Amino acid sequence: MEQGPLIYEGKAKKVYGTSSPEHVIVEYKDDATAFNGQKRGVITGKGVVNNRMSNLFFRLLEAHGIETHFVEELSERRTLVRKVEIVPVEVVVRNLAAGSMAKRLGIPEGTPLGRPIVEFYYKNDELGDPLVSEEHVEALGWASRGEIDTIRRTALRVNQVLSEFLAAQNVRLVDFKLEFGRAPGGRLLLADEISPDTCRFWDLATGEKLDKDRFRRDLGGVEQAYEEMMRRVEGGLRR
Amino acid sequence: MEQGPLIYEGKAKKVYGTSSPEHVIVEYKDDATAFNGQKRGVITGKGVVNNRMSNLFFRLLEAHGIETHFVEELSERRTLVRKVEIVPVEVVVRNLAAGSMAKRLGIPEGTPLGRPIVEFYYKNDELGDPLVSEEHVEALGWASRGEIDTIRRTALRVNQVLSEFLAAQNVRLVDFKLEFGRAPGGRLLLADEISPDTCRFWDLATGEKLDKDRFRRDLGGVEQAYEEMMRRVEGGLRR
Ligand SMILES: Nc1ncnc2c1ncn2[C@@H]1O[C@H](COP(=O)(O)OP(=O)(O)O)[C@@H](O)[C@H]1O
Ligand SMILES: Nc1ncnc2c1ncn2[C@@H]1O[C@H](COP(=O)(O)OP(=O)(O)O)[C@@H](O)[C@H]1O
Ligand SMILES: [Mg+2]
Ligand SMILES: [Mg+2]
Repeated sequence: MEQGPLIYEGKAKKVYGTSSPEHVIVEYKDDATAFNGQKRGVITGKGVVNNRMSNLFFRLLEAHGIETHFVEELSERRTLVRKVEIVPVEVVVRNLAAGSMAKRLGIPEGTPLGRPIVEFYYKNDELGDPLVSEEHVEALGWASRGEIDTIRRTALRVNQVLSEFLAAQNVRLVDFKLEFGRAPGGRLLLADEISPDTCRFWDLATGEKLDKDRFRRDLGGVEQAYEEMMRRVEGGLRR
Repeated sequence: MEQGPLIYEGKAKKVYGTSSPEHVIVEYKDDATAFNGQKRGVITGKGVVNNRMSNLFFRLLEAHGIETHFVEELSERRTLVRKVEIVPVEVVVRNLAAGSMAKRLGIPEGTPLGRPIVEFYYKNDELGDPLVSEEHVEALGWASRGEIDTIRRTALRVNQVLSEFLAAQNVRLVDFKLEFGRAPGGRLLLADEISPDTCRFWDLATGEKLDKDRFRRDLGGVEQAYEEMMRRVEGGLRR
């Protein structure tokens, strides 16, 4: 399939058209942003890690019956995916309080939540991706009741599969963000990426952060953390 | 029942103990605050309006089978109520987008929402009363699943009763905030107040604001708006 023109350049990826109307190519950049674009930088090699790790996770999830947009890894940074109409809602699953939730609700970071929590954020950079409830999502027409139910169920299943896989790699899946989209015909697919940019990964034994928080909080060792995560994920799948 | 010591002084009311452990007296002040206490002022006569209006609404709701904390109006500003353990969640029902919701989601004020929306805010001044989802309320132990269901159902019923009553008084109920509390034994009662401080009231014909937004937004005619609302509510109940 041939690569077509650039359709969209986002904060972390570029999206290109293809000769098929049902497919696009995503290209992962090394650009890093945080705090709704206020902080900017480069994490060398991030695009390569995020491309490969997302694809490995998507294949793992497919093996567990979760439909994703993944089709074929084309190169170090580029992947062919099914083109979807993105639901403008970022879906966050949390196992421990951290980041914005910890701050917002005054809970110490790392507090277990008793059970996984699903949150919805309106995907809108201008408004700063505000937290919303399922009722907002439905009433404002961003997704139907049935879609919300599917999204919630799928997100919790993703949490189960990834948490278990990562625990075996000595990694605690603290929280993560998913995006879903509608394929032609309306079928919901898991889309976008699953990577250290979009997850919080803590070493199970030491609590060391192995994700984008190292960049957000200027903790140093950012590239090393991405590569360490890559090694652990590949190691887990090789077994 | 005798008035005891001051138990709590809030932004708009004082709460006194009584000779009964199951009752307190609330006293409505003229103090007005907005934007989480950043803006302060006095609305002369507000306490008298809010005391009487809350009590009239509570009696109207009781007549429709909704249990409230109301017991007896003691004076212009003071009311005997059943003492409850307040659920630390502010429950907002919205019929039109306005205020923080309009701003937060980038929706023009006055946009109809298609159906009433229930929102939950964590009642915590230090954190600025953040919006939360039902899952947060449950997972953080602020209310049980069953209580949340009761609260949601009751809030929507309150919306029905008040919207209908107010429409007959030429008033659009745009949105409002409720608080619920647990009476001894755990029964949930509608508590706190229902007044121009806690509701948005718009004249049905002109759209004129008849509530605390006149104070928040420096629109003038604040006292007059509270008194006009009082006249309409009393007029509606006299019929
Ligand atoms: N399968 C897909 N089809 C179409 N768009 C997608 C797909 N997967 C992800 N996207 C979108 O492509 C963009 C990826 O670029 P990214 O840098 O993450 O953008 P953003 O800055 O908007 O987050 C996102 O807007 C994402 O929602
Ligand atoms: N029936 C009740 N029993 C006990 N507390 C109540 C009852 N009704 C309301 N309250 C609480 O009393 C306080 C009323 O004072 P207010 O000025 O509204 O306080 P705040 O500044 O906390 O909103 C509130 O904290 C409210 O939750
Ligand atoms: Mg993105
Ligand atoms: Mg109050």
